[in-house]
Amino acid sequence: MAIIELSKRFRFEASHVLRNPDWSDEKNYRVFGKCARPNGHGHNYELLVILRGEVDPETGMLIELKQLKDLVNRHVIDQVDHYHLNLDVPFLNGIIPTAENLCIAFYRELEKVIPNDILCEVQLWETAENRAVYRGD
Amino acid sequence: MAIIELSKRFRFEASHVLRNPDWSDEKNYRVFGKCARPNGHGHNYELLVILRGEVDPETGMLIELKQLKDLVNRHVIDQVDHYHLNLDVPFLNGIIPTAENLCIAFYRELEKVIPNDILCEVQLWETAENRAVYRGD
Amino acid sequence: MAIIELSKRFRFEASHVLRNPDWSDEKNYRVFGKCARPNGHGHNYELLVILRGEVDPETGMLIELKQLKDLVNRHVIDQVDHYHLNLDVPFLNGIIPTAENLCIAFYRELEKVIPNDILCEVQLWETAENRAVYRGD
Amino acid sequence: MAIIELSKRFRFEASHVLRNPDWSDEKNYRVFGKCARPNGHGHNYELLVILRGEVDPETGMLIELKQLKDLVNRHVIDQVDHYHLNLDVPFLNGIIPTAENLCIAFYRELEKVIPNDILCEVQLWETAENRAVYRGD
Amino acid sequence: MAIIELSKRFRFEASHVLRNPDWSDEKNYRVFGKCARPNGHGHNYELLVILRGEVDPETGMLIELKQLKDLVNRHVIDQVDHYHLNLDVPFLNGIIPTAENLCIAFYRELEKVIPNDILCEVQLWETAENRAVYRGD
Amino acid sequence: MAIIELSKRFRFEASHVLRNPDWSDEKNYRVFGKCARPNGHGHNYELLVILRGEVDPETGMLIELKQLKDLVNRHVIDQVDHYHLNLDVPFLNGIIPTAENLCIAFYRELEKVIPNDILCEVQLWETAENRAVYRGD
Repeated sequence: MAIIELSKRFRFEASHVLRNPDWSDEKNYRVFGKCARPNGHGHNYELLVILRGEVDPETGMLIELKQLKDLVNRHVIDQVDHYHLNLDVPFLNGIIPTAENLCIAFYRELEKVIPNDILCEVQLWETAENRAVYRGD
Repeated sequence: MAIIELSKRFRFEASHVLRNPDWSDEKNYRVFGKCARPNGHGHNYELLVILRGEVDPETGMLIELKQLKDLVNRHVIDQVDHYHLNLDVPFLNGIIPTAENLCIAFYRELEKVIPNDILCEVQLWETAENRAVYRGD
Repeated sequence: MAIIELSKRFRFEASHVLRNPDWSDEKNYRVFGKCARPNGHGHNYELLVILRGEVDPETGMLIELKQLKDLVNRHVIDQVDHYHLNLDVPFLNGIIPTAENLCIAFYRELEKVIPNDILCEVQLWETAENRAVYRGD
Repeated sequence: MAIIELSKRFRFEASHVLRNPDWSDEKNYRVFGKCARPNGHGHNYELLVILRGEVDPETGMLIELKQLKDLVNRHVIDQVDHYHLNLDVPFLNGIIPTAENLCIAFYRELEKVIPNDILCEVQLWETAENRAVYRGD
Repeated sequence: MAIIELSKRFRFEASHVLRNPDWSDEKNYRVFGKCARPNGHGHNYELLVILRGEVDPETGMLIELKQLKDLVNRHVIDQVDHYHLNLDVPFLNGIIPTAENLCIAFYRELEKVIPNDILCEVQLWETAENRAVYRGD
Repeated sequence: MAIIELSKRFRFEASHVLRNPDWSDEKNYRVFGKCARPNGHGHNYELLVILRGEVDPETGMLIELKQLKDLVNRHVIDQVDHYHLNLDVPFLNGIIPTAENLCIAFYRELEKVIPNDILCEVQLWETAENRAVYRGD
């Protein structure tokens, strides 16, 4: 029985602000720099969802790609695409939407709906330079 | 005398909303789709600035890249990077910040400061799928 | 009145064979190399559709992107995506599906349906190395 | 003694069909969607071969890149490039050529010829969106 | 008769120094910055060769890609790949190897050997940020 | 407590030669091919620095990106960017600058300065085809 990893890339476009509401403006700018500007900015995010498990000998697939696509679109992409991550997304409520925190939150949403415990890793690229990776640890 | 074109790529990250304030919510959503959501969304924009002119035989260059970089950063990138394009940028005041309108506005700002009439074209990629190009026509 | 160019990128995956049916096997292999192998091979194609015209002052757009997307998907992408270009596509019937010929054929299909004569150029990348460009000349 | 990982990227262009011959047409379309169309479609595949082992202090290399290139080209790329994966490749005979199954098959071919047990992982990108990874488990 | 443009991308890796031998060290550093450091630095260059002309109705091609590849490899890539552009390349002798000057020199080499006057444009990317384009003007 | 991985990509442009000074010219060419040419060649290198640790609940970050950027720029990028790796870099003295050896050397420099033992992995892409990865083993 071969154990394989399958990755699918998704994209969404959203805006956010990085600010800790318990801190002064000055401290927010010192820690978050221009990401703390109050009207926000945005990104073309890339999300990589990685599954791990046995290949089904009848299909040669780990999961039907259409099923994976539907689950990730419904539970993550449709909730965040073309939204303001601080204001519009119930499951991000009260979270500072850094790449790290988004990555963990997306993993936790997907963990609930991807069948057979095959979710293995979530990667989030905020820009071509910055990536967060979460594996459920 | 050889006529050459030189392009330099810049990046910035910003948020925006596409809405015509003279229209109803319904019409805005019909025309602009999810880009009309009121809290906005954002992009990792790529800007290509293209110059055209004679190569200086002493330097083998059309323009010193450092000078070009400083001009574009000061007059465009620093004005828009990590800002909300509808709310924070004086030279975009009253403009619907579509890729087309941003491209024209950036060309007009750069035209004022790039020496010797060598500005030739501005390209703006909003995502990897959508690009606007303006050549001053 | 500003004249702008707008590009939108599309993708499709298809197979093809390059063979001239009037030639011997030997001549086909000499001209087309391994592209002449009879069972075919395939590509992830990238299609760039470029429009040129005046920006509408009410929308800040040359065309509504959704309208452009629907037209190109219906008249080109849905006809070729996940098909064999020699066998399955009525409007490519009898054409050797080189990048050059595909690019011309796609331009001619789009010319019929994109309104206001704003179609300007079609670019087709067959691989990251090879691109054809047609401007209706 | 430093343990390093070395990756080399290869590309090939091929066509395939996803169909289980024991199933009805209807079931094949339900599971494989447009990938089940009988005349096939194709991809520009990217293959990443990853080796792991000690750096040779005399060369500063894990393996001579030329040797790796020759082995992968001879045993994988030359067998699949510009071929139909269901019809033309002996070592894929009877396998549904999904990204998962291709990845496993390529690993097993390479395992036989890459010296010193340094083959560590094979990654296969079918499109920029879909990747399979196999580590011999 | 359709007029088409065909582009093919090539890559080479080389080192260079930007210095005008008639200038002082100080002036060289002021104009060329860290590109003037005497031991040089290097790039993964990308060269796009663009041809323009009529499609041959018998092949559906502007030129046989293999012929184009051989000409560009023999006359440009093999002369510059894995060489020092200031020291090792006869046809660059006495030229400051800026992107602009390289682009012009490559165009002039290719112009001599590409048949039927179909050479149209040469693009040279020095990094993902900087590109020169020459069209023979 | 969530354990996350954070990656940041850096770029530099440098030249190098691959030669073992204890070997004959002939043996150097046999092992290193055109990389052994005495005047050197160069690359646009991409460096990925990967950290692993707990997210700070006050900032939602593993490390302040500005701090990471400053450390990597000061201790690695500024030492190698626009330099000749065999001649100009004290910490590479006596090392054959293969991707493998550079990757190990950069890891060892960063290990000394990145706080809290969170350095996890260094990846170095020499070209789009060749990557070395070191994890401190």
